[in-house]
Amino acid sequence: MQKSIEHTALYHIMNPEHIAMFGASNRFAAMGTNLLSSIKALGFKGDIYPVHPKEVQVMGLKTYASVMDLPVVPDLAFIVLPTNLVPEILEACGKKGIKHAIIVSGGFKEVGGDGIALEKKICDIADKYSMRFVGPNCIGVVNPHHRFNATYFPYQQASGFIGMASQSGSFVTQMFDYLSNFGLGYSAGISVGNEANIDLVDCLEYLGACPNTKVISLYIETIRRGREFIDMARSIVPHKPIVAYYVGGSEAGKKATFSHTGALSGPDKLYDGIFRQSGVIRAQSIEEMFDFCLCLGMCPKPEGNRVIIQTHSGGPGAVAADVCCREGLKLNPISQNTRKKLAPYVPHTGSTNNPIDITYSKNPMDYYVSIPKVLMEDEDSDAVLIYFLMPDHSVQRAMEGFGITGEKAVEQTGVFIDDQSKTVADLLKGFSKPFIGFSFYTRENRFIKNLQDKGVAILPSPVRAAKAMSAMVQYVNLREKITRGGKKAA
Amino acid sequence: MQKSIEHTALYHIMNPEHIAMFGASNRFAAMGTNLLSSIKALGFKGDIYPVHPKEVQVMGLKTYASVMDLPVVPDLAFIVLPTNLVPEILEACGKKGIKHAIIVSGGFKEVGGDGIALEKKICDIADKYSMRFVGPNCIGVVNPHHRFNATYFPYQQASGFIGMASQSGSFVTQMFDYLSNFGLGYSAGISVGNEANIDLVDCLEYLGACPNTKVISLYIETIRRGREFIDMARSIVPHKPIVAYYVGGSEAGKKATFSHTGALSGPDKLYDGIFRQSGVIRAQSIEEMFDFCLCLGMCPKPEGNRVIIQTHSGGPGAVAADVCCREGLKLNPISQNTRKKLAPYVPHTGSTNNPIDITYSKNPMDYYVSIPKVLMEDEDSDAVLIYFLMPDHSVQRAMEGFGITGEKAVEQTGVFIDDQSKTVADLLKGFSKPFIGFSFYTRENRFIKNLQDKGVAILPSPVRAAKAMSAMVQYVNLREKITRGGKKAA
Repeated sequence: MQKSIEHTALYHIMNPEHIAMFGASNRFAAMGTNLLSSIKALGFKGDIYPVHPKEVQVMGLKTYASVMDLPVVPDLAFIVLPTNLVPEILEACGKKGIKHAIIVSGGFKEVGGDGIALEKKICDIADKYSMRFVGPNCIGVVNPHHRFNATYFPYQQASGFIGMASQSGSFVTQMFDYLSNFGLGYSAGISVGNEANIDLVDCLEYLGACPNTKVISLYIETIRRGREFIDMARSIVPHKPIVAYYVGGSEAGKKATFSHTGALSGPDKLYDGIFRQSGVIRAQSIEEMFDFCLCLGMCPKPEGNRVIIQTHSGGPGAVAADVCCREGLKLNPISQNTRKKLAPYVPHTGSTNNPIDITYSKNPMDYYVSIPKVLMEDEDSDAVLIYFLMPDHSVQRAMEGFGITGEKAVEQTGVFIDDQSKTVADLLKGFSKPFIGFSFYTRENRFIKNLQDKGVAILPSPVRAAKAMSAMVQYVNLREKITRGGKKAA
Repeated sequence: MQKSIEHTALYHIMNPEHIAMFGASNRFAAMGTNLLSSIKALGFKGDIYPVHPKEVQVMGLKTYASVMDLPVVPDLAFIVLPTNLVPEILEACGKKGIKHAIIVSGGFKEVGGDGIALEKKICDIADKYSMRFVGPNCIGVVNPHHRFNATYFPYQQASGFIGMASQSGSFVTQMFDYLSNFGLGYSAGISVGNEANIDLVDCLEYLGACPNTKVISLYIETIRRGREFIDMARSIVPHKPIVAYYVGGSEAGKKATFSHTGALSGPDKLYDGIFRQSGVIRAQSIEEMFDFCLCLGMCPKPEGNRVIIQTHSGGPGAVAADVCCREGLKLNPISQNTRKKLAPYVPHTGSTNNPIDITYSKNPMDYYVSIPKVLMEDEDSDAVLIYFLMPDHSVQRAMEGFGITGEKAVEQTGVFIDDQSKTVADLLKGFSKPFIGFSFYTRENRFIKNLQDKGVAILPSPVRAAKAMSAMVQYVNLREKITRGGKKAA
């Protein structure tokens, strides 16, 4: 049922080889110039043909007075021009035979008045030439795997596995740095703008087929084609999770989103229903959406909702337990068999209830390797949540205990943490059970950074980790329901 | 009604001059040694007297074989000894005339069995000698203003204004680094442990009287003296906000907290009632608790719930609006008068609805100074929420637009951001209205760091900022209710 990616409307937009660029000049401050800078900065490998009525060269690139003069038919037109110029340029692109465009320019439907007619006009032109376009009033797209960043923000981290389509450009580009704080990156990012031609449903189609995208995230203020959205999502969810953050369910949210994109949003319950039917997981914030993406992209999926929590700090363990319970996850007692296996590692002050609270561990390898191994092997649980805390200073103090001091201690601390990270990551590779770490430390902590870079899911608090675990269970249930529903219908 | 701080049970524990230290040795790995390291590392100015049966010197300090040999009567005994030694040492301290102790040692009530009797024993000894102590089974206290850090973790940031009492030691010490990521620090941090003698109510009394504490935070798994808690809180709330994170309301939370501290927690509704009656704001996570503290400590209090949102990005503005509305805050239309004043700064693509969406601003001083000034002066609103985004690269690109490139651009970017931060912070000082910024950038961004250091409240997402604004309105309402109630009773 699904199209191959090459046949989706977005393929050439996300993976262009030859770009006709409108609006870049040698003026630094111009938006088009900035966007061309971004494209060049990420090392785009294809050809860029700036079109400009006066310039001979733009940022070192040979420039053409008209799209008609180009030596090839580009597969993408990138248009960053004053509103009133857009229709004629789009028409010229159509005549040249260009089939895809990104229109960054604003001043269309979102401003009302004449803008509405202008938007209708560009839609008609596109139809006439069988063109597909993203925008207008968007801030572009990014495909780091193709070294293609057609947005205002520099993309500086590695390519990732999150495919994002967003009705707010800010939530694509302004999240680059946010995501890099988790070691994450995009597989694809699409600012859909006014969705005059390509909309969220088309994005789903592309992201569903995109081999680099492990999980799809959506920022939604309105769904314009409800039935198609549901059908498309249901065709994707069996093999790829979709997470959405919807804003507009409250009165002020509704007004704000209307003012933002002219979107008519609906009440929360309506959208809850659409998401449930679509198999889409609803997040309650942008941060939560990306938390869910991180875990869904990094972890094996759970087979059920039975969670074991491991901690050496009572408070964070209690918080994780409390939130798991509120989220409908089960914290069953630990089996006799597993308790027996844990016994050598748990001091008398500790507890092998669930949460398992080690309180104190002489050997960090017990806490991060031996105990997790036992828990991952436990047959009466489906997932493990574990508190991560390894501040450099505590490792250094332990080194000092062994007589290693000063610079040597700093160096040895690094070596120890690197070794340990590798051991933990290698251990987890052997299991098909989700394992989520939680910590109040971030990537500035070497242990956390190493582990995240090796594919271990770690979130910055017990609440966030427990909610992400719940989202994973929710995904498995939604998928099951859709797959079963599909079979029944067949 | 309130005691002066010198007469509270915790005064000498938080502000000792002479400490008898039990359990420190020259073994690096010993917990007592680590704690002594922490005390020394923060530059404690008082005298420390290690007591050790065998050592002559401990970490360079003259050591005494018995507490009886000390040349003075210390005002604090700091006990980090094996469980079974604690009663006799406490007895000796009592005989010596020491009136205050911190007992870090575990193995008491929290382990059940003999531990229960042992805890009773130390309570009896304390009563006999009129001693007050924190613990047992705690991880100490920190008072950065007194350069006193008696916990396992190094305290490396500046002194702050948050007074924390916690039934989890982790949530005192393991948050040092977390708080420093917001430029925050503690005015006082108390890990209450088993609360055998000093409990949360005593902590409230101290923190309420503490001049360095602008806002009180509590991590709670149980409240042991309900009536006293309510009375004490009600006496504090009129002049100082209290925020609590309570865990134990769910079934798993209840079991986990029982296992952690032997606390019998109660259902959410019971605790909601206690908090409402006490005037305490309830947070839903540790992060949220500190978000609330940040804003309550930094901002003037709002006179009502009418909020104006300013943004240049539609998505983040819509999110803030949606959450404000869900939280019961009001987003009224902007008055004609204010619209008129805003007109020069808002381009035709922008909107002066609420959220005010500038979309694009040629001059960042408009966005961060001129517009906020108009909004802070607006008489029909009580608070301003504003989206902060000033990535270095965009300022640098703007510099390039003025012909400033290379290293010069980097340098000028820094100067520009520093100047601008100062201007924004100075502007806000002139108003008694709360102003909260939200951004997905953190202190790694120079603008954010500068502003936070100058006392401007900035939180890392629109959801978190809107919820914190709501907490501030909630505080004002709770305070009003208590003050009115008090007057009625009088």
